[in-house]
Amino acid sequence: MDFVLKRDVLSSHLDSLSRAVATRPIRPILNGILFQFNDGLTMTATDMEFAVRSRIPDISGENSFVVDAKTVTEIVKSLPDQEVKFSTDGQKLDILSGKSKFQIFIQDGTDFPDVKIPTDGIQFEMSRAQLYSMLERVSFSAANDENMRNLNGVYLEIENGISRTIAVDGFRMALAEEKVEGAFNLNFLLSLRAIKELARALSSINSEKIKLRFENRQIAFDLGSTVLVCKVVDAEFPNYRRVIPEDFKTRAVVDRNILKSAVRRVSIMTRAGSETIKIGVENEKIKFSSRSADLGEAEELVDAQIEGEPLTIAFNPNFILDALNHIEEEKVQLNFVDSNKPLMIDTPDLKGYFFIVMPVRI
Amino acid sequence: MDFVLKRDVLSSHLDSLSRAVATRPIRPILNGILFQFNDGLTMTATDMEFAVRSRIPDISGENSFVVDAKTVTEIVKSLPDQEVKFSTDGQKLDILSGKSKFQIFIQDGTDFPDVKIPTDGIQFEMSRAQLYSMLERVSFSAANDENMRNLNGVYLEIENGISRTIAVDGFRMALAEEKVEGAFNLNFLLSLRAIKELARALSSINSEKIKLRFENRQIAFDLGSTVLVCKVVDAEFPNYRRVIPEDFKTRAVVDRNILKSAVRRVSIMTRAGSETIKIGVENEKIKFSSRSADLGEAEELVDAQIEGEPLTIAFNPNFILDALNHIEEEKVQLNFVDSNKPLMIDTPDLKGYFFIVMPVRI
Repeated sequence: MDFVLKRDVLSSHLDSLSRAVATRPIRPILNGILFQFNDGLTMTATDMEFAVRSRIPDISGENSFVVDAKTVTEIVKSLPDQEVKFSTDGQKLDILSGKSKFQIFIQDGTDFPDVKIPTDGIQFEMSRAQLYSMLERVSFSAANDENMRNLNGVYLEIENGISRTIAVDGFRMALAEEKVEGAFNLNFLLSLRAIKELARALSSINSEKIKLRFENRQIAFDLGSTVLVCKVVDAEFPNYRRVIPEDFKTRAVVDRNILKSAVRRVSIMTRAGSETIKIGVENEKIKFSSRSADLGEAEELVDAQIEGEPLTIAFNPNFILDALNHIEEEKVQLNFVDSNKPLMIDTPDLKGYFFIVMPVRI
Repeated sequence: MDFVLKRDVLSSHLDSLSRAVATRPIRPILNGILFQFNDGLTMTATDMEFAVRSRIPDISGENSFVVDAKTVTEIVKSLPDQEVKFSTDGQKLDILSGKSKFQIFIQDGTDFPDVKIPTDGIQFEMSRAQLYSMLERVSFSAANDENMRNLNGVYLEIENGISRTIAVDGFRMALAEEKVEGAFNLNFLLSLRAIKELARALSSINSEKIKLRFENRQIAFDLGSTVLVCKVVDAEFPNYRRVIPEDFKTRAVVDRNILKSAVRRVSIMTRAGSETIKIGVENEKIKFSSRSADLGEAEELVDAQIEGEPLTIAFNPNFILDALNHIEEEKVQLNFVDSNKPLMIDTPDLKGYFFIVMPVRI
């Protein structure tokens, strides 16, 4: 069986597919990419939790085979951009281009696990840019520990025409929301690994809308010639609404860049692993300070518009910086309840997202 | 004691000084930078093998103190570019800039080890660009293992008006040479760590000439306001001349980029840790091939101008690629003796450098 492909076309498909190949797969065949011919070429890669399926039309062939993902990707990437000829006898795949000749061992396609892709169920569309921004704004707040399955991901909730992403790690939370069309409610948790690959895929395509299909606890993100399929994480996401503070007693509006520089500078005088900075709000000023027994101390004053009561509170400065790095607006609003309650960071003109940081005891 | 410095000026000095601070110093005070006032400000950092001394003129002050390098560098880097005021009472260093205030613990300057900087001995000048290129062209061939003290560095040799750098790791060798003025002979071994910092410093300054001073087994590289001082490694460098092959029986001249792509492609079909590619030279062609028991095989033909006898030989492709990455000329010359003798890679118009790669048994 012979088929010919343009190097550049195949290479970009292989890049997406490779992302579904686990570093240490549970079965050796999952190191591979399944090539299937069926009114075009369909390529599939999966780690059994996350799958990518890619299609190149107008290619005909028979049978199906599995080829090592790393090897075929590296070979195709290394070739000059011209037509590449593939041929297989069922045992080996020959790749020919110019004066280069490769022969790779392949496996039978029937040994590859059956990847089910939702084709029915709840179907809806979302703006690519909005989905991307909702994921990017919150995923930094998820727990990095893969053993904490219910926090090592991003929760997606669609409710009354609003879609919402939420990530929580026990010390902080991030929430972003956007409007969505459709009269259905839906919520599910996706692993951070799936979110990362999804965000990468969303950032590399141009289409304005993404088609989503939810069926059998799987969600398919249809990006045109490539479909990403994620299994929903089977763990309960915490009731994030209970963490959202209310009845703010103090609010401060500050220039984002000035705030960022001040927090960064004061945090120099803290030791890795025990970062704590003190924040004092009073008289149109916020005072940031820190003290380290072996290094010394730092202090900085920042002008702010303040409403409400004076307050002293302490935080891990990294959590505040992380939140500030995900705000684009010029002004930031800090909303305090008291020294023991979480701080909510948003913007004076609410834009559908906010960040919550737990205080540190002082 | 008070003194005022421009943030940008101090910051660039601190960057160079920080490079002399070891990650895990043998004495805690070596975490610091020594500030001394003596007709200007002199700052010194050392890990006892390698030292940097930096001078800012027109600053007056008394006493001397040692301040934690990481902390002071981070603070100064974090400040906006304006004047920064320093003051010290002998216990603490106050740093003031705008609304930022820092107080760092300091140590007495007299506790800092005495860093001797050659001021006499053999003195000569070298072109900055030439010295940099001589170091860059060979240092990749040095052994990375710090326990192999005699190979974990670059050998500098000055002999009859020629300066030469040589690095060897037991599998390959690189040699570069340039003319130098002066009627003296000299040779010494510098550690890869010192070479790395020296190359970095050479690449970040503009001056055309570098002053060198060799005294008491120390070499000072005088870059103007900054002096780098390296202790010579007390280990015997191997007799590299014995490794240089002679009486070549086969020579091939090839386009460097075509050769690089071919070697890279064929090496895809080798496994990490056992990379071997076969090279067959015959009839105006070089055939590159590889075979891996679990992946498959690869083959590529490259046109070449060949003189001499046909030959088959095998190499670790990474060593060949490393050498090719350090050649800028369009054409490369491969000089073979036989299947068991090292390959010499140079350019058809000898430019004062060559690379030697040991073959792999086939």
